[in-house]
Amino acid sequence: MRPEIIQKLSEIVGKDNLYTELEDLYCYTYDASFVKADFKKDLAGVAVYPSNTEEVAQIIKLANQEMIPVVPRGAGTNVSGGTISVGDCIILVLKRMNKILEIDGKNLIAVVEPGVITGQLQSEVERIGLFYPPDPASQAFSTMGGNVAECAGGPRGVKYGVTRDYVIGLEAVLPTGEVINTGGRTIKNVTGYDMTKLFTGSEGTLCVITKIIVKLIPLPEAKSTMMAVFPEIVQACETVSEIIATGLVPCSLELLDNIYIRNIEEYAKVGLPTEAGAVLLIEVDGDSEILAKQIGKIEKICSRLGAVQIRVAKTKEEAEELWRARRSAFAAVSRLRPTIIGEDATVPRSSIPAAVNRIQEIAAKYNIIVAILGHAGDGNLHATILTDETDLEEMARVEKAIDEIFIATVELGGSLSGEHGIGRAKSKFITIQTGEVGLEVQRQIKQALDPNNILNPGVMFGA
Amino acid sequence: MRPEIIQKLSEIVGKDNLYTELEDLYCYTYDASFVKADFKKDLAGVAVYPSNTEEVAQIIKLANQEMIPVVPRGAGTNVSGGTISVGDCIILVLKRMNKILEIDGKNLIAVVEPGVITGQLQSEVERIGLFYPPDPASQAFSTMGGNVAECAGGPRGVKYGVTRDYVIGLEAVLPTGEVINTGGRTIKNVTGYDMTKLFTGSEGTLCVITKIIVKLIPLPEAKSTMMAVFPEIVQACETVSEIIATGLVPCSLELLDNIYIRNIEEYAKVGLPTEAGAVLLIEVDGDSEILAKQIGKIEKICSRLGAVQIRVAKTKEEAEELWRARRSAFAAVSRLRPTIIGEDATVPRSSIPAAVNRIQEIAAKYNIIVAILGHAGDGNLHATILTDETDLEEMARVEKAIDEIFIATVELGGSLSGEHGIGRAKSKFITIQTGEVGLEVQRQIKQALDPNNILNPGVMFGA
Repeated sequence: MRPEIIQKLSEIVGKDNLYTELEDLYCYTYDASFVKADFKKDLAGVAVYPSNTEEVAQIIKLANQEMIPVVPRGAGTNVSGGTISVGDCIILVLKRMNKILEIDGKNLIAVVEPGVITGQLQSEVERIGLFYPPDPASQAFSTMGGNVAECAGGPRGVKYGVTRDYVIGLEAVLPTGEVINTGGRTIKNVTGYDMTKLFTGSEGTLCVITKIIVKLIPLPEAKSTMMAVFPEIVQACETVSEIIATGLVPCSLELLDNIYIRNIEEYAKVGLPTEAGAVLLIEVDGDSEILAKQIGKIEKICSRLGAVQIRVAKTKEEAEELWRARRSAFAAVSRLRPTIIGEDATVPRSSIPAAVNRIQEIAAKYNIIVAILGHAGDGNLHATILTDETDLEEMARVEKAIDEIFIATVELGGSLSGEHGIGRAKSKFITIQTGEVGLEVQRQIKQALDPNNILNPGVMFGA
Repeated sequence: MRPEIIQKLSEIVGKDNLYTELEDLYCYTYDASFVKADFKKDLAGVAVYPSNTEEVAQIIKLANQEMIPVVPRGAGTNVSGGTISVGDCIILVLKRMNKILEIDGKNLIAVVEPGVITGQLQSEVERIGLFYPPDPASQAFSTMGGNVAECAGGPRGVKYGVTRDYVIGLEAVLPTGEVINTGGRTIKNVTGYDMTKLFTGSEGTLCVITKIIVKLIPLPEAKSTMMAVFPEIVQACETVSEIIATGLVPCSLELLDNIYIRNIEEYAKVGLPTEAGAVLLIEVDGDSEILAKQIGKIEKICSRLGAVQIRVAKTKEEAEELWRARRSAFAAVSRLRPTIIGEDATVPRSSIPAAVNRIQEIAAKYNIIVAILGHAGDGNLHATILTDETDLEEMARVEKAIDEIFIATVELGGSLSGEHGIGRAKSKFITIQTGEVGLEVQRQIKQALDPNNILNPGVMFGA
């Protein structure tokens, strides 16, 4: 990065909030995905930590004038390579903008800066009986800005939807450095195009989010958790379809396959039957009067479709224990092989059995290990490829397998990504789903708003 | 319209589906809004009724080549002047594309053509225990395509959200004539920009919607309806805020002011106390076990805040009777003066008392009649101006009053339109809310997708 740019940036954010040392910049060559920036070619020129919207606007204005790429970044927990450096760029880290500006219990909204940790917002609103449902696995570390940029989901998506269903207003800095406000504080709002939803999930390519207004809902009175064990994974998948088709809406409906079960049990000793084909972890919430009835109905469906063991948590601690199995899943399988590639192809719920079948066939064909866990209730399967990125021969097979998984997903009426985003990891696959025309119209929007292509270039649209 | 264009259009849709007579074209100079196209200047050149996507695509391609404006239209029930003719244009009526293509109970989705009547879809899905919540007042006539284009709302918005919360995929014809598919059949979907939500509420300015995928939810088991009568409107407004702040979420929470009450009673004889300051019509739904508890809590709040009469419907017929009052509201006040201008400014729910106050002050200042009814539960007030458009002096005062209502709304943190859209009626006000930069970025999107400005020119952005 040219010294005069560094100087100007330093004047904007202060020299203590700007990093140029190699060991600092190295951190931004990766995020939580398997994509890594080339250390030599793609190292960032500078990382800046602005503290307010005005500083962000000045940085972007400068970058746009000088045509310097800018990569916005929160906690870097995304798993699609959406926040890694692209050569001599500015890494714009929003973690210092971390204030919860307002929790408005009368209007059921919260206003936050992008650096607020999602889990922290959740704790704060729950203290006054409110609820912000989106619950990505990263919620203890990931930021609201990142969650909005990626449109994060989570287990509760099946009942409560995802981040886009809660964002009702944004303040954002455009690629020109201009600040705009979209949406607002009302649930109903049709004044102009829905820029709020367009920016949500735009992966840092259209704007830098500097303030977020989310709607909140009343915290459900109670919840109840159960686990059902199935000899065959197809039985578990059919159970998921049947629960949904019956009109029951659990707040979570999670599936673990045998590979996960075995590894979790080895790792966390939670009492899972290691010979089981699949386990469903099911949680319902709502008024305490109706939970027992719902759990009863779900138990019946599980039994009818072949569950050999059903555990309903009787205490909060027992529920926590069941969730511990699910939460240790990634840690457990990550001991198996050095590289984990977590896909999140999503299919219509009735296609889950077929999707699981296809994934298992593809894994067998290419002789690779693919474990399946997922938010089965909303069709969001996480096919987890356990591999070794240094084994180039195996990686070639992995790539072919991923290609086929994506094609199968779209053939089954699904989406390449349910909640992880496209980023740099999947940009080459995007037209499988959008088609050329569908991508072109998105590119036109990108081009209209960011003619110099300074914001997160390469993400979503490829190089 | 040039004869060779008429000829080409006739070849596309067939001569029986094309209209050029004066008495036909006159119909398209107005919709359900108070805006009327100038009969001499703005009469359409032709109206066409395509029967499938391919025909729509051919029409748009031709229009784009020849730079002829196209005004897409469903049932014409919109109240913001979004579907009226703009001179020598093509009126593209989508009513023949009226098939429910699929109701998929396993995946809780429906796929419909744009000409399907919203109420018809609702009846069909309810027959199998499913629910499509958006319920604009026009639901018995308005089409799904129009509902999506306007992002229609309705009383149930307070609990269930609006059209945008249910549209998960679209097929649409772009201004180039190209066909794209956005979103899909999955609840979670983050592949690329959220074009589905961008197109929803874009008022026919970005694309012509030819197929719609909506998510459905299980039909609530039961509902319960009540009415509470308040001496003063401010008490009713405070009751609304209190109900919401207590964490209760009725499926409808409707407010009628004294002007409405008196006129409804005169017109429909439903037993409303004509001296009351306001009436709240409240409906809760969900599991039958919990409704009585919810109604009980709401009754207590109403009493505490000054309700002098509370009626809880004991039968379906009694509930229907309460709703009849609400439904006859517009018909009732339309007898008062020849012109009705229904605004739908929306404020954060806690600002409802202040908004009602401001509206009443403005009405007094300009000596005009403004009746208030609204979806108070989501802050979506319908300030209804009762006037006479032939009285130019009064209309001048009305215009000033509308200006001030909009400014007050935005000052209170609200939106110019909650569910009616901007159309031609409010385009001159839009920057009060979006700001110049906010509108400019939307104009850039319009320009990128529709460089010849053929789709519904003038709507949203003005002439």
